[in-house]
Amino acid sequence: MSPTPGQSPMTEKSVIQQSDRVAHFTQDVWSLFTRLTLENNAVNLGQGFMNFPAPEFIKQAAAVTVNDDPCNQYSVPKGRLRLRQALSATYSPLFGRTLDPENEVVVTAGANEGIFATLAGYLDQGSEVIIFEPYFDQYLPNITMNGGVPVYCPLRIDSHVDRNGVVPSSAWRVDLDELRSKITPRTKIILLNTPHNPVGKVFSEQELRDIGRIAKENNLLIISDEVYDRLVFKPDVHTRIGALNEFWDRTITVGSAGKTFGITGWRIGWLMGPQQLLAPALAAHTRIVFCVNSPLQEAVAIGFEEADKNGFYERQVAEYERRREKLTRAIKQAGLPYTAPAGSYFVLVDTSKIRIPAGFKFPPEIASRGANFEMCYFLCKEIGVTAIPVSEFYSPENAELARDFVRLAFCKTDDLLDEAARRLQKVTKYIQQ
Amino acid sequence: MSPTPGQSPMTEKSVIQQSDRVAHFTQDVWSLFTRLTLENNAVNLGQGFMNFPAPEFIKQAAAVTVNDDPCNQYSVPKGRLRLRQALSATYSPLFGRTLDPENEVVVTAGANEGIFATLAGYLDQGSEVIIFEPYFDQYLPNITMNGGVPVYCPLRIDSHVDRNGVVPSSAWRVDLDELRSKITPRTKIILLNTPHNPVGKVFSEQELRDIGRIAKENNLLIISDEVYDRLVFKPDVHTRIGALNEFWDRTITVGSAGKTFGITGWRIGWLMGPQQLLAPALAAHTRIVFCVNSPLQEAVAIGFEEADKNGFYERQVAEYERRREKLTRAIKQAGLPYTAPAGSYFVLVDTSKIRIPAGFKFPPEIASRGANFEMCYFLCKEIGVTAIPVSEFYSPENAELARDFVRLAFCKTDDLLDEAARRLQKVTKYIQQ
Repeated sequence: MSPTPGQSPMTEKSVIQQSDRVAHFTQDVWSLFTRLTLENNAVNLGQGFMNFPAPEFIKQAAAVTVNDDPCNQYSVPKGRLRLRQALSATYSPLFGRTLDPENEVVVTAGANEGIFATLAGYLDQGSEVIIFEPYFDQYLPNITMNGGVPVYCPLRIDSHVDRNGVVPSSAWRVDLDELRSKITPRTKIILLNTPHNPVGKVFSEQELRDIGRIAKENNLLIISDEVYDRLVFKPDVHTRIGALNEFWDRTITVGSAGKTFGITGWRIGWLMGPQQLLAPALAAHTRIVFCVNSPLQEAVAIGFEEADKNGFYERQVAEYERRREKLTRAIKQAGLPYTAPAGSYFVLVDTSKIRIPAGFKFPPEIASRGANFEMCYFLCKEIGVTAIPVSEFYSPENAELARDFVRLAFCKTDDLLDEAARRLQKVTKYIQQ
Repeated sequence: MSPTPGQSPMTEKSVIQQSDRVAHFTQDVWSLFTRLTLENNAVNLGQGFMNFPAPEFIKQAAAVTVNDDPCNQYSVPKGRLRLRQALSATYSPLFGRTLDPENEVVVTAGANEGIFATLAGYLDQGSEVIIFEPYFDQYLPNITMNGGVPVYCPLRIDSHVDRNGVVPSSAWRVDLDELRSKITPRTKIILLNTPHNPVGKVFSEQELRDIGRIAKENNLLIISDEVYDRLVFKPDVHTRIGALNEFWDRTITVGSAGKTFGITGWRIGWLMGPQQLLAPALAAHTRIVFCVNSPLQEAVAIGFEEADKNGFYERQVAEYERRREKLTRAIKQAGLPYTAPAGSYFVLVDTSKIRIPAGFKFPPEIASRGANFEMCYFLCKEIGVTAIPVSEFYSPENAELARDFVRLAFCKTDDLLDEAARRLQKVTKYIQQ
């Protein structure tokens, strides 16, 4: 298979030398496993996109806004007024303060570009950013491309928990002493993620206060990636660190229309926080993309206006609870331990009991990336279910912690989840009890 | 007026120190003059957005694609297949070679992010990029944010031309000796722009060959920003440096759906070039935004498929020729010299004859940015027409060259251009013959 651009920038030599910034990039895990899924006709529980329709009310809104002529032109860099107003209306009660739509909300080209722009606005060469492992894989290049240095603090599973059964996601915890030990004079940012991808953990208020106080003691910026904030399952509740008064003035909260409304291809996200904190992120954003696609911004605005009236969020959570139940039941039946997610649409599965038959062949692009990639390759090819290797969410120094874990997504139709459930039972013959 | 984020990042001090990368940014000229236009109820010939409707066929396409469920999810980072195929189909004849849709086209979040990602993929700390003045203002932060150093090479007006009349845009020329003198061992890229914003110059094949050979002699990457490639007026023709065989393997050509179809708010652009040259840009793009908004990509694909059949480009050029005629006639009538654009939708107007009355008051945000900003402020407030100060497109060292020039856009309705034409006649009383 010939390499495609971006998958493996080093495989063909350009006449012009590329930047050190990208020279070390390996193929992103998403493109790799999307291709393997197609090649093996696997059920794709890898990438977290929805294979069910977006809500009718948001598609209808978009069909209108693409015909609204001014909507088809540039928006101001901080985003269309109606969307900023809708974000203020929907989030102000959740933050317990009125968000000023003029100054406390910035619309970005997906949460991804929002995080990238924030890092661009704050990092200097050598600035350190603390990320908790496992971390969403894009964080790492987003930090290093902006001259920053990632500093890793792994979540640790509570030693009292039986790892051979169902692990509550709350058992994955930050060791506060370990976190403190990571701070240096160069530390600038703590990058939090709650609800957490891929663990499904929803940080408790106490945990957030503990982390927040460490940030405060060291005058650190908190970026709180809360893109799964609308996908939290009963009885858990989502706490926003930016809503805790003592941390508002040092927290930028990141949200996503893709996750909120099941439209991952729209690439609309937002940053929320105090004006003076958002200013550097907006300055960077203005130069990176200038502004975000305008007609779909307007449609998301209408989406929020409708959703707040029509009970969309409650319906959506109920649907996801059913999907979670379907997938976790199948994993349990197959005899595999897993972490029960309190939020997000991912399940972390412990594959340590699975024995890959001796002599099973792996292509070099997989073998070169370790046991966790091999397990996902085996699951894709032999079981017919695509998962994402969690080692991609760990630094090399801590990758051993990831060795056994793979991530499955349940933002999928019942049909697909049922088929995945059937196929997953095939692992039983490879399980060593 | 209280500052808004991004306009003036330095005016309010954040609790966390911003990056040096953005600390020196001044308010972007677009946000500033958009606000002044509203405050003064001026006719906005500043920012180059269309105030007329996008073509029906592309709006209709979008109304369909936003209801196509898979289209609402992530596309692969390099772009949706149908758009890459459409780009290949429409551009292959223009390049005189078959563009491989799998490897020789990358869809970006507007041309802006395409250029940013290319610079991110190639620049290391201290790498130099040559840009021709006047340059599109976003180039500068796009270079510096990625650790690069801009090196300026001004276009010089042919000394034989009467600058008090109509200056042909072809009279703005690169001095090849001056260009050669700018090259150092750290030079990595020449960033070209043809058709040129704001001069309206369409580089001739000979000029491109001359510049290309200098790039070749020094093993430089050429980024050719050709976003106005479909807006070239008879008898001029657009030549693509990437289509000249000897330069294909070192050229990345940048295009824009916003300019091609009059939808500046869709934020869809593309990069075209050989696979190994695009790879670093795609690697960076994948990490900056992951992918581009997916339903509008599909609509642009349909737009290209239709446009190639329905004579859209010829109709559009004819409409722009009429608009250009309307605006340039008014400028001439008002007694102002100008540069006649061969392409793009901008006219560079020479304001040196205008005398601003003594005692005219400028707010500090204008006065601090020099005579050229003052002239645009005067035109906005007193004449009621918004123009863009061209000094924003020059380095401080060469800003004196810009002193007299302001940019007017004619991507506007007849009504608006007629009103601007009427208002422009008011300058006659301020003209010193």
